[in-house]
Amino acid sequence: MALDLHKRIYSKEVQSSKAGSQVIVAGWAADAKSLGKIAFIKLRDRAGIIQLVSSDKKIIEQASKITNESVIAVEGKVQASKAKAGGNEIEISKIEVLSLSDPKLPIDMSGKIETDLSKRLDWRFLDLRSQKHKLIFEIETEVLAAMREFCLKEGFFEICSPKFQGTAAESGAETFWIDYFGKKATLAQSPQFYKQLGVIAGFEKVFECAPVFRANPSHTTRHDTEFTSFDIEIGFIKSVDDIISLEERWLKYILERVKEKFGRQIKEVFGVEIVAPKIPFPRVTMDEAHKIVKSLGGKVEAGMDLDSEGEKLLSQHILKKFRHEFVFVTPFPWKVRPFYHMRPANNPDVSLSYDLLYNGLEITTGAQREHRYEKLMEQVKDKGLNPKSIQWYLDMFRFGAPPHGGFGLSPTRVVMQMLNLGNVREATFVPRDTERLTP
Amino acid sequence: MALDLHKRIYSKEVQSSKAGSQVIVAGWAADAKSLGKIAFIKLRDRAGIIQLVSSDKKIIEQASKITNESVIAVEGKVQASKAKAGGNEIEISKIEVLSLSDPKLPIDMSGKIETDLSKRLDWRFLDLRSQKHKLIFEIETEVLAAMREFCLKEGFFEICSPKFQGTAAESGAETFWIDYFGKKATLAQSPQFYKQLGVIAGFEKVFECAPVFRANPSHTTRHDTEFTSFDIEIGFIKSVDDIISLEERWLKYILERVKEKFGRQIKEVFGVEIVAPKIPFPRVTMDEAHKIVKSLGGKVEAGMDLDSEGEKLLSQHILKKFRHEFVFVTPFPWKVRPFYHMRPANNPDVSLSYDLLYNGLEITTGAQREHRYEKLMEQVKDKGLNPKSIQWYLDMFRFGAPPHGGFGLSPTRVVMQMLNLGNVREATFVPRDTERLTP
Repeated sequence: MALDLHKRIYSKEVQSSKAGSQVIVAGWAADAKSLGKIAFIKLRDRAGIIQLVSSDKKIIEQASKITNESVIAVEGKVQASKAKAGGNEIEISKIEVLSLSDPKLPIDMSGKIETDLSKRLDWRFLDLRSQKHKLIFEIETEVLAAMREFCLKEGFFEICSPKFQGTAAESGAETFWIDYFGKKATLAQSPQFYKQLGVIAGFEKVFECAPVFRANPSHTTRHDTEFTSFDIEIGFIKSVDDIISLEERWLKYILERVKEKFGRQIKEVFGVEIVAPKIPFPRVTMDEAHKIVKSLGGKVEAGMDLDSEGEKLLSQHILKKFRHEFVFVTPFPWKVRPFYHMRPANNPDVSLSYDLLYNGLEITTGAQREHRYEKLMEQVKDKGLNPKSIQWYLDMFRFGAPPHGGFGLSPTRVVMQMLNLGNVREATFVPRDTERLTP
Repeated sequence: MALDLHKRIYSKEVQSSKAGSQVIVAGWAADAKSLGKIAFIKLRDRAGIIQLVSSDKKIIEQASKITNESVIAVEGKVQASKAKAGGNEIEISKIEVLSLSDPKLPIDMSGKIETDLSKRLDWRFLDLRSQKHKLIFEIETEVLAAMREFCLKEGFFEICSPKFQGTAAESGAETFWIDYFGKKATLAQSPQFYKQLGVIAGFEKVFECAPVFRANPSHTTRHDTEFTSFDIEIGFIKSVDDIISLEERWLKYILERVKEKFGRQIKEVFGVEIVAPKIPFPRVTMDEAHKIVKSLGGKVEAGMDLDSEGEKLLSQHILKKFRHEFVFVTPFPWKVRPFYHMRPANNPDVSLSYDLLYNGLEITTGAQREHRYEKLMEQVKDKGLNPKSIQWYLDMFRFGAPPHGGFGLSPTRVVMQMLNLGNVREATFVPRDTERLTP
């Protein structure tokens, strides 16, 4: 009779089980080996690894046929391990092969040989079996949960906005085009217009966590052609400062949660100390940012955004000076911002917006939006856009729109920076770039 | 000086404020009218509606210029209302117009005239200002939160799978095609292959809540070209019954939450009694379903799925007989199921899968998946598919795949059926169909 998987416990629970008790475990076989009169198998499940042993002849013979990465279910008796590491192990009484693995594994699974990232991504289902890689997504699950939880506690609406769009919210450059029943449609580069719709519809506080699509032809460690974006928009604000302080509280909440739940494990596995950020975060103007970057030998272009090298230099400076991993660059030059950002009355060269850097990488753009129809129309013209192409959006400001603003952030970038992973693909479940469409 | 929006309270809080206290509120003006020596404005915010009054000459003059749907901020004194409805109102001491509305509203906002759905969707940001329509999305927020919360409590990983795919998981018929840097890519019709990847990678229990895309040319009350799909997949199951009982517990959890938080409001606004379903849900085989539908005068096609009329008849019968709003139809004929569903050893004509109906509409398909490589290859051939086109998927079953299964469900359909809305567009924030790409 087959082993009853309903009675299965996780490897971790074996450690707290009484010696002598009968248990059932199931998972992937690793390091299966037979040393003459004794067989060892490491069993890996989602909670960890447990050692299985047997000195029974029949079972040793059976075990010798089990290839690494096969899925097995095992019944056995809990006993204290004789190995140096200590803890419990299981003496096998019954072993069942649920799925026998081809012995020729396409990538190294022992953790001893480094496989290049591209090949690892080709075999992502094997790559993610490593405890380290799996941990990234356990943390990402927690990050997303904390992000939403904060919003729900504060009374936000969750929205699910359309990804098919007749108009592009951002510049047309990075747009993917689709044949949509004989018409042309684009894929959402951002839920920008729709989260504003939510606020203007009276939802007041909205969030969305969903994929966005950018036809960015560059192949860097920071860019995917699609990624998950967490977007927030709130109404009835006094100024962009309300957005900044919301984002500060939000990030503090998230990092505190990660630190609490995974701080020790992250230290062990990634060698990184998670820091829950102090509020307020440091802020610099773009001029100050330029001065700092120049003083550290970086390049800047007058009136323009920092490049990725500049972002790193600025963050290094802030970390040294303020012991803070975050820094807001605000206000931002109008000419590098989209038409819907608000400009202050006294300075049309800037927009009431910011970028937020985390450990040397931009993770957010936020802004107060222009909610006054006439001003918005001026800005549409100033940017040389055709108002007709976004008429439905502009119409939203003709029938009562409160002052509002918000930001968008890539949770993947947050995890990448938090764990110092060096490449956004490490923190992406199954990444997409210009070359990659499989798996 | 401008009113301090940081001190603003919601309309609901005014009801619990002391008479005589000074408060600030902000929202949309409705029903603004001046009766000679007294002015009334209803102020609508995200929490409800509050009456504003004034007998001050200056304020009456100011109020007379405020068009309906303008956004205003108001300071005033709380007082008991003289109206029959009772409760508190605010005597205005200061009024500030944040955004003046064009007086020519494109759709009726009084609730007195019925506007057709298509026009309402054209002006969705106005349409959603109605308390009734807004409530749908407050409930949807709760439904999504409960769905995730259940999974997180049970130790699921959240995954964010790619929407750009080199291969289509479902049949090629409803596929959207994109030009992807000179290659052809499709948009995900389902995260099916990727949630299986998560399980086979050892995450064991995964969920995803994200948009899916179906190039369905039909225009019905049940279909969108994109919708949010909640997908669940778990490993180490004994049989498809594990999936069925997981879904039962999950739906019970969700409906209990909605009933608890919104039961009374739903009864008032939608005239619907929310029922937390009893476990186990009724089950019928496809043959039984056919008999029931035929006996009620419906049409069926031997060996095929029910049509939408058949689904309604079956649910009516089940409701009458078992007082239950849900019914599983299981097992399902193999010929209407995709290649990756498992077939029982003793009957290759069926698959170990089910549909779940809720109040007369299919909301889920679930199944145990075939995890044995040889069987899977047979099924690929049986369905006449080219294994090369899905090689990466098939390879996942060569290196240890546990028995697993799962289901996908449209939260929008759940809300539609729960509130008896009659059209899925009512429960979709900004719907898309073959004709509609804006707003």
